[in-house]
Amino acid sequence: MAFERLAGGPTGARRGRLSTPHGTVETPAFMPCASVGAVKALSPQEVREVGVELILCNTYHLYLRPGHEPIRELGGLHAFMGWQGPILTDSGGFQVFSLAPLRKITEDGVEFQSHLDGSRHFLSPEKAITIQQALGADIIMPLDECPPYPISHDEATDALERTLRWAERSRDVHKESDQILFGIVQGGVFPDLRERGVRELVRLGFGGYALGGLSVGESKAEIETVLRTTTPLLPADRPRYLMGVGTPEDLLGAMALGIDLFDCVMPTRHGRTGNLFTSTGRLNIKGAKFARDPSPLDSSCQCYTCRHYSRAYLRHLFLAGEILGLRLNTLHNLYFYSHLMQDARRAIDEGRYDVFQAEVLSRLSGGDTAD
Amino acid sequence: MAFERLAGGPTGARRGRLSTPHGTVETPAFMPCASVGAVKALSPQEVREVGVELILCNTYHLYLRPGHEPIRELGGLHAFMGWQGPILTDSGGFQVFSLAPLRKITEDGVEFQSHLDGSRHFLSPEKAITIQQALGADIIMPLDECPPYPISHDEATDALERTLRWAERSRDVHKESDQILFGIVQGGVFPDLRERGVRELVRLGFGGYALGGLSVGESKAEIETVLRTTTPLLPADRPRYLMGVGTPEDLLGAMALGIDLFDCVMPTRHGRTGNLFTSTGRLNIKGAKFARDPSPLDSSCQCYTCRHYSRAYLRHLFLAGEILGLRLNTLHNLYFYSHLMQDARRAIDEGRYDVFQAEVLSRLSGGDTAD
Repeated sequence: MAFERLAGGPTGARRGRLSTPHGTVETPAFMPCASVGAVKALSPQEVREVGVELILCNTYHLYLRPGHEPIRELGGLHAFMGWQGPILTDSGGFQVFSLAPLRKITEDGVEFQSHLDGSRHFLSPEKAITIQQALGADIIMPLDECPPYPISHDEATDALERTLRWAERSRDVHKESDQILFGIVQGGVFPDLRERGVRELVRLGFGGYALGGLSVGESKAEIETVLRTTTPLLPADRPRYLMGVGTPEDLLGAMALGIDLFDCVMPTRHGRTGNLFTSTGRLNIKGAKFARDPSPLDSSCQCYTCRHYSRAYLRHLFLAGEILGLRLNTLHNLYFYSHLMQDARRAIDEGRYDVFQAEVLSRLSGGDTAD
Repeated sequence: MAFERLAGGPTGARRGRLSTPHGTVETPAFMPCASVGAVKALSPQEVREVGVELILCNTYHLYLRPGHEPIRELGGLHAFMGWQGPILTDSGGFQVFSLAPLRKITEDGVEFQSHLDGSRHFLSPEKAITIQQALGADIIMPLDECPPYPISHDEATDALERTLRWAERSRDVHKESDQILFGIVQGGVFPDLRERGVRELVRLGFGGYALGGLSVGESKAEIETVLRTTTPLLPADRPRYLMGVGTPEDLLGAMALGIDLFDCVMPTRHGRTGNLFTSTGRLNIKGAKFARDPSPLDSSCQCYTCRHYSRAYLRHLFLAGEILGLRLNTLHNLYFYSHLMQDARRAIDEGRYDVFQAEVLSRLSGGDTAD
């Protein structure tokens, strides 16, 4: 894998191209979550058609069901799920720390119970790599400790230090030349710890760097402080991934600070609850005011949903619980995210990202639904 | 509308072509149910791509939500749901008699409560026509009385006679020249009543004839008796529609007796419960034996699902409750039905329907799931 820088300076928004065995990814890029091996409600073909190049799958979910060994036998994750483009898998750590009951963390790894059937499992840094190798993703992540928010400086220090020791063990067992291993920076909202995390990970050397442990309850100002502390220290020739973030506004802010990769459940999950992104802000399609509204969700949007359907029809499908409504909503939201990134990339290429960001933020504030 | 006979004799399987303002339908044809204005889990584009030419929408559901007036304002049902091909709407009667609580039948019509919110409504033969005119379907049905099974000869006689009086009232108020009104034959499982029903409806004169009140619990032998009694009496130059039936085996049997049109929730509903039709019989995708099965659902099927996915992946999606699984299953089942009809039409064209029917029935008996 190679990461080529195309536009942008040493700080601020930047353009890049990530090459993987399953194709290239223009950055900055947004990855939708295909948690259990499918972007919820969509086909791989639809995901590709809205402009998505890279997707994220959750190791925790796939390890528990159907299991990484069956997936390997069936030709790996790409073949299993019919997605021929690049895939990033997380390590499973985040879900273990957020979903699984009865976790027990030791230096060796983390013991947990499946949220599906209560069965007991043990995930070590080495096992997280083994599972991701079996899945065959293009980009893989090391097991990290994801502490809750808020935590004390001492607790954040412990989590950071364990994450660094686990990162080194992960790097040592990672052998696949066609999989790129990222490092994950922890350290909570403490700038000194984040800075230490970056320096030690860079010393170990990884193919890319992720900022983890955010989007768990901190303020937007705290996230911005972490970004301002860490991005200037990260090597310019490696992709930077802000894990689990966020709203369109969050993405715009983080791109301005040099982030290349994002993932978030927001466009897909919000699609399924009728929360729809438009160029003038959000709307909830359940609203009675849409009952006889013949206009598309967003008259400036060229997605399949907006080209074919009225708000009145989408509201009807949503209220009737029709699967097609969930599909059309999700498709629209993902198109919105994908085209936000496409527009951002063009703005960076043309050296006008600041103006672009201000314009979009101004437009987005026009919606009727707060975050 | 015109119905052109293309192949087949005065009795037995026959080929035809139905012309409507929204295009032609090659018969025999199967209509999937788009009950509330969407074929469940599928887009109109997918429905068209599996070869479907005609769909059925339920007047009862659309009348209650979102209402026929909003749909008329929004340009009619075709525009509302984005389906440009022919649409048949039922009268609402079947759902009133099967879904709605607290029905009260009078000579005037039927009073009922909405199953959604308990609100009270009154449906008369005239109102059923008014609603269907607002919806703008190509083929519409008169309100009929759908009695339960079993009923006595006297009760069936009463229901038939009321249905005939309602059919005449429906015909008298039906003025739209671009909508074809069918007549519905009732009469339960009693050959004398069915025969009387046909003769009186034909005397009134309708654009097509439907056999109603079946598929509510009778034996297959009883349905066959009704078909053998009625089809020879129906005008050869009008389409014949067997309402609500059924399995692939049922369709093959009814086509052999001269039926042209079918509707049933079976392919779509079974798709959502993991019951999948294959050329060698049915399977339930939940089965543990499919956990590591790399083969497609049906190796002789060319649908999107079978061209892209393994049984193992479909089982995984189903167990994980993923919407994509419901989509892929529904798409496959509807493709199966649509191509069964396509193959049947070709067999009739080539004068070998009997051989075709025997071959398919023999293959279908190979599955692992009984009806």
